[in-house]
Amino acid sequence: MDTARIQAARRVIDPVFLDTPLYRCEALEPGLGCMVSIKLETANPVRSFKARGTEVVASLLAGTGSRAVVCASAGNLGQALAWSGRGRGLEVTVVASRFTPAAKLDRIRALDARLELVDGDFDMARERAAALSRYDGIRLVEDSADIETCEGAATIGLELTEVGPSFDAVLIALGGGALATGVGHVVKTRAPDVEVICIQPAGAPAMTHSWRQRRVVTTDSTSTIADGVAGRRPIPAVLDDLLLVADDAVLVSEASIIGGMRMLLEHAGLVVEPSAALGIAAILEDRDRFAGRHVVTIVCGGNVDLDAYHRWVGAAPIQAVPSPLTLR
Amino acid sequence: MDTARIQAARRVIDPVFLDTPLYRCEALEPGLGCMVSIKLETANPVRSFKARGTEVVASLLAGTGSRAVVCASAGNLGQALAWSGRGRGLEVTVVASRFTPAAKLDRIRALDARLELVDGDFDMARERAAALSRYDGIRLVEDSADIETCEGAATIGLELTEVGPSFDAVLIALGGGALATGVGHVVKTRAPDVEVICIQPAGAPAMTHSWRQRRVVTTDSTSTIADGVAGRRPIPAVLDDLLLVADDAVLVSEASIIGGMRMLLEHAGLVVEPSAALGIAAILEDRDRFAGRHVVTIVCGGNVDLDAYHRWVGAAPIQAVPSPLTLR
Repeated sequence: MDTARIQAARRVIDPVFLDTPLYRCEALEPGLGCMVSIKLETANPVRSFKARGTEVVASLLAGTGSRAVVCASAGNLGQALAWSGRGRGLEVTVVASRFTPAAKLDRIRALDARLELVDGDFDMARERAAALSRYDGIRLVEDSADIETCEGAATIGLELTEVGPSFDAVLIALGGGALATGVGHVVKTRAPDVEVICIQPAGAPAMTHSWRQRRVVTTDSTSTIADGVAGRRPIPAVLDDLLLVADDAVLVSEASIIGGMRMLLEHAGLVVEPSAALGIAAILEDRDRFAGRHVVTIVCGGNVDLDAYHRWVGAAPIQAVPSPLTLR
Repeated sequence: MDTARIQAARRVIDPVFLDTPLYRCEALEPGLGCMVSIKLETANPVRSFKARGTEVVASLLAGTGSRAVVCASAGNLGQALAWSGRGRGLEVTVVASRFTPAAKLDRIRALDARLELVDGDFDMARERAAALSRYDGIRLVEDSADIETCEGAATIGLELTEVGPSFDAVLIALGGGALATGVGHVVKTRAPDVEVICIQPAGAPAMTHSWRQRRVVTTDSTSTIADGVAGRRPIPAVLDDLLLVADDAVLVSEASIIGGMRMLLEHAGLVVEPSAALGIAAILEDRDRFAGRHVVTIVCGGNVDLDAYHRWVGAAPIQAVPSPLTLR
């Protein structure tokens, strides 16, 4: 990865996705025992960081006269590519698992993309998207493998290192690796003392195992509510990049992910998808490691089915009862 | 109000409160029948727009050697003044109604302010704060009456008129009037064709009645869940400013406020306090007026007691049941 290219990427991304809120959230701190800042990537038209990458991809494609593009997606990349492609006249096809949260699938359709569902998981969607690309001769966008997706995500790193107080550690959700390698590259280049910690669910540990063993390790299945990061087959080139920039890769339990989601709701007022709570989950699982330090966690996405969300964080639909308070 | 002073105000406000997200939220649009953009004022250390004003107030006070300051607050101004004062060595006293949501009172205390509760509503807290100011000889900050609180809020207007697509209307929560007069002034100065619409709960209509009758109209009580805008006694000078800039002032029902909160949760993923849903409520009550137009609504605060929130929007605490999805 190259910092000059990342700075160039920033110039082609729609400003609506840039300079996202970065703020200390003191209300979270008593429960976590450390200083916590939030980098919020959910307050934009696609409610995740993924459009930073798809903006770069789509502007390049539009510049070369491409008409169509296909990607596999766990849900957020597809929305983002649909948004970025629509604005540039690209025909976007998204391949996703039929187990993808309905909230994500509905938004992909609403953004005028063609959506194809596979009866399997994200890595099966990857295979199908690659096949479609070959058969139809249309460009395949491969999350984390295509350098533009990492460079787009890396612009978050520019924002983290350019403003505000200095952090001791950055907590990054680890899935395919675009976010972790992108942000990690910039942070290690510009603020080498800041610890880059990647977090993955224990139920989808392939990339973490790969990082630890310094070779690609695949798994047969995943078992996690964090649908955005549930991959089984790490991409070798992405692992190579991750080995250069990550100081650590840790696994967290489903209970900690739920605990993190609940804390973000109760103390930060944020409804997030499970992947976005991985950073808080990591603190919950190892308070001693972070005690007294200043960490920034990237809240990377907020696309979640509310029924599932309420089930997880402990609230379920009941009858609404308006009850105004009369005061004098 | 004066645009040059508003631009000067922007330079003394901590950047963490500025350049907040402004984005179109297409997921809201099918249910509302118009184009909707959100100006999000909740992703900052105090979760409301109020710190834009208190930053201006506190920097002036610190510059003149003041040591202490007192304000009455419905909850958000107190938090904001506590935050702004703490960073500048000011001793902050906040007077609030004991009926203020606990979430707001807890945060005021956590930010090291002295909190005094009155056994009455916001206008009784105003009287008590004024008395404290007189007896103790400390500076009183009066929301909406002190021009700095309006100038701070007005910086939102600068951001709305400087970037992005053009809007047909701006929907602004109306309480004491700082937000409405501040933003309204900038919008009418810089984009006079944009309609400035103020929204108040029908259960707290004093300022709207005053605007319509062009004279101060008080009420004996308020009855609304929108605690942030529940005043009974409009300030004459603020009404004068509002008469200059508001194109309309409308009242909405509690059911519409709740409907607005629910839509912001379900389609925008945002947990907001009732006052922040007034704009959506106004669209829900008069779809024909907004049909096909592009409106921006200022989501002005997110400090809400979650128990009450769940009661309103239709979700209540139940046992959390983790249920990871196993995929292969």
